[in-house]
Amino acid sequence: MDRVFKRCRISSRLVRECFAEFLGVYILILFGCGSVAQVTTSENSKGEYLSINLGFALGTTFGVYVSKGVSGAHLNPAVSLSLCFLGRFPWTRLPFYILSQVFGAFLAAATVALQYFDAIIHYSSGDLTVSGPTATAGIFSTYPAEYLSVWGGVVDQVIGTAALMVCILALGDSHNFPAPPGLEPVLVGAVVMVIGVSMGSNSGYALNPARDIGPRIFSYIAGWGDEVFRTAIHSERPHGRLLTVTIYQAPCQVLRCSGDVLIS
Amino acid sequence: MDRVFKRCRISSRLVRECFAEFLGVYILILFGCGSVAQVTTSENSKGEYLSINLGFALGTTFGVYVSKGVSGAHLNPAVSLSLCFLGRFPWTRLPFYILSQVFGAFLAAATVALQYFDAIIHYSSGDLTVSGPTATAGIFSTYPAEYLSVWGGVVDQVIGTAALMVCILALGDSHNFPAPPGLEPVLVGAVVMVIGVSMGSNSGYALNPARDIGPRIFSYIAGWGDEVFRTAIHSERPHGRLLTVTIYQAPCQVLRCSGDVLIS
Amino acid sequence: MDRVFKRCRISSRLVRECFAEFLGVYILILFGCGSVAQVTTSENSKGEYLSINLGFALGTTFGVYVSKGVSGAHLNPAVSLSLCFLGRFPWTRLPFYILSQVFGAFLAAATVALQYFDAIIHYSSGDLTVSGPTATAGIFSTYPAEYLSVWGGVVDQVIGTAALMVCILALGDSHNFPAPPGLEPVLVGAVVMVIGVSMGSNSGYALNPARDIGPRIFSYIAGWGDEVFRTAIHSERPHGRLLTVTIYQAPCQVLRCSGDVLIS
Amino acid sequence: MDRVFKRCRISSRLVRECFAEFLGVYILILFGCGSVAQVTTSENSKGEYLSINLGFALGTTFGVYVSKGVSGAHLNPAVSLSLCFLGRFPWTRLPFYILSQVFGAFLAAATVALQYFDAIIHYSSGDLTVSGPTATAGIFSTYPAEYLSVWGGVVDQVIGTAALMVCILALGDSHNFPAPPGLEPVLVGAVVMVIGVSMGSNSGYALNPARDIGPRIFSYIAGWGDEVFRTAIHSERPHGRLLTVTIYQAPCQVLRCSGDVLIS
Repeated sequence: MDRVFKRCRISSRLVRECFAEFLGVYILILFGCGSVAQVTTSENSKGEYLSINLGFALGTTFGVYVSKGVSGAHLNPAVSLSLCFLGRFPWTRLPFYILSQVFGAFLAAATVALQYFDAIIHYSSGDLTVSGPTATAGIFSTYPAEYLSVWGGVVDQVIGTAALMVCILALGDSHNFPAPPGLEPVLVGAVVMVIGVSMGSNSGYALNPARDIGPRIFSYIAGWGDEVFRTAIHSERPHGRLLTVTIYQAPCQVLRCSGDVLIS
Repeated sequence: MDRVFKRCRISSRLVRECFAEFLGVYILILFGCGSVAQVTTSENSKGEYLSINLGFALGTTFGVYVSKGVSGAHLNPAVSLSLCFLGRFPWTRLPFYILSQVFGAFLAAATVALQYFDAIIHYSSGDLTVSGPTATAGIFSTYPAEYLSVWGGVVDQVIGTAALMVCILALGDSHNFPAPPGLEPVLVGAVVMVIGVSMGSNSGYALNPARDIGPRIFSYIAGWGDEVFRTAIHSERPHGRLLTVTIYQAPCQVLRCSGDVLIS
Repeated sequence: MDRVFKRCRISSRLVRECFAEFLGVYILILFGCGSVAQVTTSENSKGEYLSINLGFALGTTFGVYVSKGVSGAHLNPAVSLSLCFLGRFPWTRLPFYILSQVFGAFLAAATVALQYFDAIIHYSSGDLTVSGPTATAGIFSTYPAEYLSVWGGVVDQVIGTAALMVCILALGDSHNFPAPPGLEPVLVGAVVMVIGVSMGSNSGYALNPARDIGPRIFSYIAGWGDEVFRTAIHSERPHGRLLTVTIYQAPCQVLRCSGDVLIS
Repeated sequence: MDRVFKRCRISSRLVRECFAEFLGVYILILFGCGSVAQVTTSENSKGEYLSINLGFALGTTFGVYVSKGVSGAHLNPAVSLSLCFLGRFPWTRLPFYILSQVFGAFLAAATVALQYFDAIIHYSSGDLTVSGPTATAGIFSTYPAEYLSVWGGVVDQVIGTAALMVCILALGDSHNFPAPPGLEPVLVGAVVMVIGVSMGSNSGYALNPARDIGPRIFSYIAGWGDEVFRTAIHSERPHGRLLTVTIYQAPCQVLRCSGDVLIS
């Protein structure tokens, strides 16, 4: 058995890192979107909003445990990008990481759809919709609340991402008061938990472009139609998440990073 | 007192290991099925679905604390089997471990029935049924949701077990980022928590053949009748759990193990 | 300031230990009964059954942190008694510990009544009752569910106490897999959590004679009348908790302790 | 990049400490008040009272992680004041700390209002009120329950603050059983959790003058009017929180501190 393993061992470091990023995001989305699927299709009888918060929080924790030793557990294109800006990660690896992350999220969304296939069909009577009483697109990617304006969405993203980055950087800052060794993944999960508990109702605390885009593409392909993009970008509910995520997250993170580094 | 203890000390290592596996599974099922009994018979007034998730998660945690130092805390025939395939556990001990695990689950189910005897009689008016509005067989073993197809059940089991194994192997993988020493049981409990939160509504996240078969046999003997097997194997609700568990879990776990070992 | 402290320092070791036991039980009951008061008087709008589970679990955690370094954090007459039987605690100290524990619970109940005085009066319209729609005696001590028989109550106590002791002994057992140093109080709290989640609905998981008797005496004095004892011992709801606790807990714990010591 | 950071590094220790206190309280209130905003504006569909408890608990945890290495993470004027009395903190720094804390809370309240602007307008139909069915002032600062008398409020504050201080001092007491290194912030968060679960319904467990005054001033400025002060100080609902907090908290804490130091 051990010999089989040895032969299969991947020698390229980049490939191993990409696989770790893939697997980490896969685990994160598998548990995260799975908990949304469970709460949605059981109509709150087998879970509640706190279950979803827990799903993403513990999903993050185990996504980090699965990948941290190999790739450093970015699990988030915005984190990879920020680290490039800060000079802690080589630009040449960035596209590989981002692709792996998005692909992991895509495949995890497909897995959730497979696992909850019967449940989704039963809940929605086979009608896959993005909005309405039995909407199921929200299982895969996030949609803004009806009341949210474009600027409200942007502000929500910026604050959420900034809060995430300040806490994560503080946890890893050896000049300040870092998390105890080995428990970083648990505390990063706790950050995701508290953000879900306090910043989740406006537009679902996406925070992570890969977490949102991968499953969104999947739900487009899998039969929810192009409304999954229209609702997000230029529908009557005027919230351009994709834009938001791409344009606003990265620079804001860099700013915050700098601020945090200064005081420590 | 100490002298009495010394005389009673069990000298055979195998017997001690089997007793540890027995006790570990006993604790796991005592808390797990107990929480289902509490939520069911109190009609959600003394708990909710999250309580059941917590019951199995913390039950796992303390089941591991009780047995890890003696037997390694497999607590699951599928885990023992996988470790045999991977060459980390001798095949000769496998039957003893499995028997101890199933017997622990059986006795724990009996204990829960004893503890909740009055409550079950009061809730069900003395009518022990597997389905219907006051069904109580679900306290002991898991039953698929009405909508679930056979293949849906198989897929659900395979994904759940794979997720469990990937996370547990990552937590113990010293080449990657292992759990801090002494806290493995807590993190294994957290894995069970997140699986219950994200993969529990289809068929109750059994994941563990002993956890399901022991209490199922108990509920058959204790008066719920042979419907406890028929519903699971070849009733109108067409989900062959026993088959599923036996056939699909083990090989899938071996596959996943291998994959995980490779990247670390 | 430091000089004032030095002069006030208590020199007698026994007095310090008794004060630590007193303070530990006080904290435990203050948070535990406080959470029941909050859930009851807010009619579930500011908490739910899980809040009560958390109140007692974290109450235990901090009760242990407050006292462990001084008195060893028994916090429970049954634990002190068991340790005497096992030869790990001198019989001569037993009465002092038990008195301190009961007095701590009594004073904590008084504190909760003081803190929730307005709320209790508002909720019950000033009518302090043990049963009925606005019963408030359950804030202080536990009462069996209506359906529970005497033997059901006894069995419930024996199983609950046994489960508590097995887990706690395993957590401290250096021959097995002990809790990581410094985190024992958190894990003992988790044991109380899982017992509350899985064994709480029959009769409120008292487990601790001091936790029950102290507040019960307080509620008798404070105006709930002698029904607080009658309901528990020889009313139509036939559950003799006091008897149960006194007679059955201690020997059962000794038995369990022995069993646990053997396998480790 | 690193050179930019170096140039920006703040050389004055006091300024850095003040910034850390500011940031710590900011994080605490951002998550804490954010969770109230989420539960309020989603009308309990995206959270419940436990979410709010979690928001303040984890908010405290990360507030401490962000500031502990730099300023010691007081995050609370009452804590700073107590430490001055105990001779562990210089009186000369007290005003700077308090100002930073209040300003952090003020700005965090402003951030929450910005993030939930659309949600608050939608929920309250644009009518910013302190009481009534769609009251939103409670998102920012705490208001006593209708039934609470002045003395009830004072007692509630004194007990809550005393419980907080006893637990926190025990966690840091190296002569007793201190929290494991690196996990103090998590356990301080757990103290806030259990206080929220057991002492939250009377008047919202403010415990922290900065947490209450900063956001209260913000809500006064931002359009909720001077009722935010009147309700708290001398309205028909007769609870003088500001008075309470200022007069009663500090001396009671000093008393408690002394008691705690004695037994360890």
